[in-house]
Amino acid sequence: MAMRKLKIGLLGCGTVGRGLVELVTRNDSLIRQRTGVELRITQILVRDLEKARPGVDRALLTTQAEKVLNNGCDLVVELVGGIEPARAFIQQSLAGGKHVVTANKALLALDGFSLMKAAENQKVRLGFEASVCGGIPIIRALRNGLVGNNIQSLSGILNGTCNFILTRMTEDGVDFAVALREAQAKGFAEADPTLDVDGHDAAQKLKILAELAFNAQVSAEGIQVEGIRDITADDVQAAGELGYVIKHVATAELVDDALSLRAAPVLLPSPHQLAGVRDENNAVLVRGDAVGEMLFSGKGAGSLPSASAVLSDIVDIACHKGGFPLSDATRLSTAVRDYQSKHYLRFVVESPSAIGPITTILERNGVGVARAAAVWAKSESSQNQVRVLTHAAPQTIIEASLQELARIGVTKTRSIALRVAG
Amino acid sequence: MAMRKLKIGLLGCGTVGRGLVELVTRNDSLIRQRTGVELRITQILVRDLEKARPGVDRALLTTQAEKVLNNGCDLVVELVGGIEPARAFIQQSLAGGKHVVTANKALLALDGFSLMKAAENQKVRLGFEASVCGGIPIIRALRNGLVGNNIQSLSGILNGTCNFILTRMTEDGVDFAVALREAQAKGFAEADPTLDVDGHDAAQKLKILAELAFNAQVSAEGIQVEGIRDITADDVQAAGELGYVIKHVATAELVDDALSLRAAPVLLPSPHQLAGVRDENNAVLVRGDAVGEMLFSGKGAGSLPSASAVLSDIVDIACHKGGFPLSDATRLSTAVRDYQSKHYLRFVVESPSAIGPITTILERNGVGVARAAAVWAKSESSQNQVRVLTHAAPQTIIEASLQELARIGVTKTRSIALRVAG
Repeated sequence: MAMRKLKIGLLGCGTVGRGLVELVTRNDSLIRQRTGVELRITQILVRDLEKARPGVDRALLTTQAEKVLNNGCDLVVELVGGIEPARAFIQQSLAGGKHVVTANKALLALDGFSLMKAAENQKVRLGFEASVCGGIPIIRALRNGLVGNNIQSLSGILNGTCNFILTRMTEDGVDFAVALREAQAKGFAEADPTLDVDGHDAAQKLKILAELAFNAQVSAEGIQVEGIRDITADDVQAAGELGYVIKHVATAELVDDALSLRAAPVLLPSPHQLAGVRDENNAVLVRGDAVGEMLFSGKGAGSLPSASAVLSDIVDIACHKGGFPLSDATRLSTAVRDYQSKHYLRFVVESPSAIGPITTILERNGVGVARAAAVWAKSESSQNQVRVLTHAAPQTIIEASLQELARIGVTKTRSIALRVAG
Repeated sequence: MAMRKLKIGLLGCGTVGRGLVELVTRNDSLIRQRTGVELRITQILVRDLEKARPGVDRALLTTQAEKVLNNGCDLVVELVGGIEPARAFIQQSLAGGKHVVTANKALLALDGFSLMKAAENQKVRLGFEASVCGGIPIIRALRNGLVGNNIQSLSGILNGTCNFILTRMTEDGVDFAVALREAQAKGFAEADPTLDVDGHDAAQKLKILAELAFNAQVSAEGIQVEGIRDITADDVQAAGELGYVIKHVATAELVDDALSLRAAPVLLPSPHQLAGVRDENNAVLVRGDAVGEMLFSGKGAGSLPSASAVLSDIVDIACHKGGFPLSDATRLSTAVRDYQSKHYLRFVVESPSAIGPITTILERNGVGVARAAAVWAKSESSQNQVRVLTHAAPQTIIEASLQELARIGVTKTRSIALRVAG
């Protein structure tokens, strides 16, 4: 097997960048043996030359992007993140005939289609396996492994922070705030966790996956997004007693030729394939017309898992010199679907006797009550509640009922409504 | 995007062949849109021209292999199965500069390396995604998605027939023979189920996966193979009471630079990721140094799932005209490892009081007894038993103890010993 050399210019040397340097160094001979490709990182863009970066050769570092972009490398790896200057770096690399590999989920969710078009026009490749679900080769599965399938639905646990928090709430009975602090202490959550816990990170990933799976262009506004801040330990426990697990799930499905997209907490029946995905792990469940239901799960983030995905793109590009064709994405309409499903409702009430008017109004609106429980406050600081598991009902009716109950003063503060999946 | 045409010669039109024709017909425009490739099946080799094949154009059929092999197609799909003439067909196609896609697990397990070498020498591609786990893109995951990882272990439920039978035994409490008949009635098991239920099919798949994952050449003799015929409904129930599920699992792991390979029934703790894989589904759990543990699961066989895998190889070849480099496989030694693990033992005894000598002899041999139960026969036709869950002990000592107990007449007929995983 003839050995090929690939010169890599690296933009950014944060968590994933250092992971890439570590992996290329550690598994160098293995990769050469498997693929006949010798990888060499020739230059690394950083902001601060003096910062400690164990294992990284300081001679490769530069603070000038131009030095990386114009140094004759074959491929540019963009790991600086954010929109600018990342986009300009990628555009300049593609225009210069260089292949690009990126982990930049925010940029791809915003502008992926035009970047892919630019790559196609230049007959170079744009790899982005690391942008969704870290080390899980889900992009590759959608573009290659399942290429002959008409995809019917795709759903997944795409945000490791939400999943870690909900797992701790489920298994340790702690509240959201406690679990969030633990996630932050372990490095699974940012100091400002908004993007993760409010569902936006999962929505961005869902957009990237849905565009590939359904050959569609999806607008960010077409995705219903809800986070997990309002979920309490009591909710998690009550769900558990009913045989459900609360998970933050992103779903895209084709309903009457319209794509319905949602990233929100739901109750999954305990035997559901996504219900057993614990801690910071991610998982994607894809249903195709030929393969049926297929699950991919593993570590969705982290230095080495993400570096593994970057590396798979690099090797793929090195092995296949030809351009990877871009699909002519069709513009599928995106529809906010009125889900017919069971719901778990939780109301804060003055007195638990509110179970009467609550169930009465729900039933009068056509929302069948499967189970209802009046729950007295356990302590001074907690509140009386009514919890309801409904039969299948449209989400719009559920929401109208919640508003009616608030308007007539039966419920205090914001009530919660979670869809029961499966 | 420029449209490319790919002419496909199809050898064999059984279950997977008809699935391929159906899928290519049904998802033709989708595949063209996604990849810019127009697929055309130009000729199909069959044994009997008159057999009913709904959806297959009779004008394409021929009984002469030469007509398919010499008709100017770009790619040959081999779905006749078995060793010969499948091997000769593939060799002739490769020698003629044609790409080949095959689902032939038995042939690849026997002779995969020399066929891959032949493809590499001719600068053509040999695709075999469909040979293992049907629609699950596990070959692609190992060759591409996880290419930068040093794989530490790989284990999976690779035989759908065994898994269907064990699932029925677990969930319905039926015995092996009843579950096997149900599997046969549903088309999940052959009239002669030997290859499946005795573990050989799983062993062949394990060989193919292990060679890719570990860059090794594995000899069939290096794999420990056990089937599931001896497992009874009582075993399954007893395992369940202890918190375990019995599954047939194929495992390859690197222990001190030697590869240890095994395809055998084991007890998995109920929360284990493979424990929840039900019915005829397959799953593969891979542990890589970068990605950690990753699970792939889905339908492991069947007409359309396997056709989906064949199609993914076809499209991949059509899109990347260059040859996919073959790794220079190293010869890793294969070692039959002496597993240190907990075991579930079941003995048929004259009287349940044999629990005394059994536990005494086990303990004297250094096998710690965690739990033991003396079980009286439920009816005339069943037998008295002693069941034991041991602490971790080497497999060799367990086997020696079983032989000793049989020799001194404490146990009747063959005893059973299953490893407890996890």
